[in-house]
Amino acid sequence: VNVKFLLEGEEEIGSPNLTPYIKANKDYLKADIALISDCSQFAPRMPAITVGLKGLCYMEVTVKGPNRDLHSGSFGGAVANPGNAICTMIGKLTDADGRVLIPGFYDDVVELTAKDREEMAALPFDEEEFKRDLEIDTVHGEIGYTTIERKGARPTLDVNGILCGFTGEGAKTVLPAEASAKFSMRLVPNQSSEKITRMVVDYLQKICPKGCTVEAHEHHGAEPIVVSTDSDYMRAAHRAVAKGFGKEPLYMREGGSIPVVMTLKDELGIDTILLGLGLPDDNTHSPNEKFNLDDFQRGIRTAAYLLDELATVK
Amino acid sequence: VNVKFLLEGEEEIGSPNLTPYIKANKDYLKADIALISDCSQFAPRMPAITVGLKGLCYMEVTVKGPNRDLHSGSFGGAVANPGNAICTMIGKLTDADGRVLIPGFYDDVVELTAKDREEMAALPFDEEEFKRDLEIDTVHGEIGYTTIERKGARPTLDVNGILCGFTGEGAKTVLPAEASAKFSMRLVPNQSSEKITRMVVDYLQKICPKGCTVEAHEHHGAEPIVVSTDSDYMRAAHRAVAKGFGKEPLYMREGGSIPVVMTLKDELGIDTILLGLGLPDDNTHSPNEKFNLDDFQRGIRTAAYLLDELATVK
Repeated sequence: VNVKFLLEGEEEIGSPNLTPYIKANKDYLKADIALISDCSQFAPRMPAITVGLKGLCYMEVTVKGPNRDLHSGSFGGAVANPGNAICTMIGKLTDADGRVLIPGFYDDVVELTAKDREEMAALPFDEEEFKRDLEIDTVHGEIGYTTIERKGARPTLDVNGILCGFTGEGAKTVLPAEASAKFSMRLVPNQSSEKITRMVVDYLQKICPKGCTVEAHEHHGAEPIVVSTDSDYMRAAHRAVAKGFGKEPLYMREGGSIPVVMTLKDELGIDTILLGLGLPDDNTHSPNEKFNLDDFQRGIRTAAYLLDELATVK
Repeated sequence: VNVKFLLEGEEEIGSPNLTPYIKANKDYLKADIALISDCSQFAPRMPAITVGLKGLCYMEVTVKGPNRDLHSGSFGGAVANPGNAICTMIGKLTDADGRVLIPGFYDDVVELTAKDREEMAALPFDEEEFKRDLEIDTVHGEIGYTTIERKGARPTLDVNGILCGFTGEGAKTVLPAEASAKFSMRLVPNQSSEKITRMVVDYLQKICPKGCTVEAHEHHGAEPIVVSTDSDYMRAAHRAVAKGFGKEPLYMREGGSIPVVMTLKDELGIDTILLGLGLPDDNTHSPNEKFNLDDFQRGIRTAAYLLDELATVK
C-alpha cells in the first residue's frame, strides 16, 4: 500500500489554497481512496464511520443606517436603527422551531427515506444524557424530526456572531450607525451552497427595513455529501476499526462540513473514508478542547490495521 | 444673585452618587431655580430653551442556552441558539415602524395636545437637511407623528449594543452559549421608568424561546419632564438668550434625558432652566464630538445676561 499525505492548516479560514493545489497536482495526488479523520466517534467506546457530512454556507451581513453613531435620545425614534433592523431580519430567517424561512431553502433537499430514518433511530443515542451534558432543559429544532436527524441530516441555520454598537460594561446611549452578524447554514444533499447564497442575499435585501441598507457576502461554502457503505474500501475500514477499537463501528451522519471531500471526488474521482477518533464532548471549536489519549492509542492501532485491510482490496 | 455650583462627572454611568449627595445636602443646596446646559440649540443661529426631556429606561439582557460554546455543525439545529433567540426577541420589541410592542407600554403616555403639535410644527425644522446630514434616504418612526414629534415627544426603543459569539475577522462556526444586548427606551410624561422596567422584564420572560433563559436588568432610569414656559424665571432666561445670541430663543422638547432635573424638583422643590448651547450636529456620544467656539462666546455672554435678568425676578 502506497500512502500519500496531504497536509494543510487553513481549514478554519475556508482552505483557500487547498482546491487550487489539488487541481494543479492531479497526477501527483492520484489515489484509490482518501482517508480523513476530522470527525468523531458516536460516543465513548462507540467508534463510528461517518457516511454523511453537511454542506456549509457561511454568511456575513452588515446593516447600515445613518452615516455616524448618533445619540439615541436626540435621534432615537426618528431614524432607522441598524441594531433593531438586524435583529428583525435575523428573526425572519427561522421560525420558532428553527425551520428556515428563506423562500426556496428546502426545494432541493432530498428527504430522508424510511430506511435512513430507521438506521438513525437504531443508533444508541441517549437524549437525556445529551441534555444533561449541555445543561439544557429541552432539545430544540424542526418539528417532525428527531435530534439525531436534526443534527446529522436536516439543513439548519445558526447565528455564529453579532456585533453592534456599545458592548462594553455599563451603558452608552448610542444609536449605532451599523450592525453586523455572521450566520451559517448547514446543507444536506442536494442543496447547493452557491444557490443557497443567492437565495439568502435576495431574501435579506427583500426584508431589509426602509432607512437601512444591507450588504451580505459568503465567507466560504461546502457541498453536502453522503458516502455509500457498499464498497470494498468501506468494508476494509469497518474491519480495521473493529480490530483497532475492539468494537464494530456504527455508521452515522455528521452535521459538520469537510469541503475537501467533495473536491477529492470532483477533481481526483475518489471517495473518502471518514474515520473519526474524537468524541462529541471534545469541545471542538470551544474553550478547553481535548482529545482522549486512549482514543489516540486506539486510533494508531486502527490506522495500522487499515493499511493491512486496504492491501486486501483488489 | 447668589450662585451655587454643583459639579459631577458620573452622568454617563447614571450618576450613582448625585441623588444621595443632593438628599444629604438639601439645606446647603437650597435655591430658587437651577440652570443646566446639557442640551442644545435648535439649529445653527437658532438658540433654544428646552422645555421637555424624555425619561430613560436602559436595559441589559442576556440570553443563555447550552452550558458552553458548541460546534454549529455538530449541534446546530438540535439545540436552541441564544444568538437566534436574542434576535427574535428584540425583533418582537418593536414593529416595522418602530412602535413599541411591549404590552402596556403606551398606557400612561400623555397624548400630545393640538397646541403641542402646532407649536412643534411651527419650529423651523428642515427634514431634507436632516436627511442630508445623516445621509439617509428616508426618516423612520411611529406612523402618524412628525420627525420633531418622534424625536422630542414620543416614547422610543433603540438597540444600543449587541454582543454574541465570534465577532472577529473571518468565520468561526460556533453555536454561542449566550448572547447579550443593551437597549434603551425613551419615555414621555407620565411614563414611569420603574413601571416600564417591570413590563419589559415580564415581556422578555414571556417571549424567550424554549431551550433558552433570559436575564434582564435596568442599568439606570430617568423620569420624563415638561417645563412650563409661564414663569418669571423662564421669561428672564428668554431675555438673556435674546441678548446673548441676538435672537429670540425657540422652545423645544428634546429626546435626551437628564435625570437630575427630576431629582432637583423632588428633593429641592425647584425647576430647572434648560439652556443648551451646543448644536444638533455636535456628534454627542459619537466620534469627533465638537463644540462651536462662537457658541462658546455667545454662551458666556448669555450667562452674564442671565445673572442680570434673574436679579430682576422678585
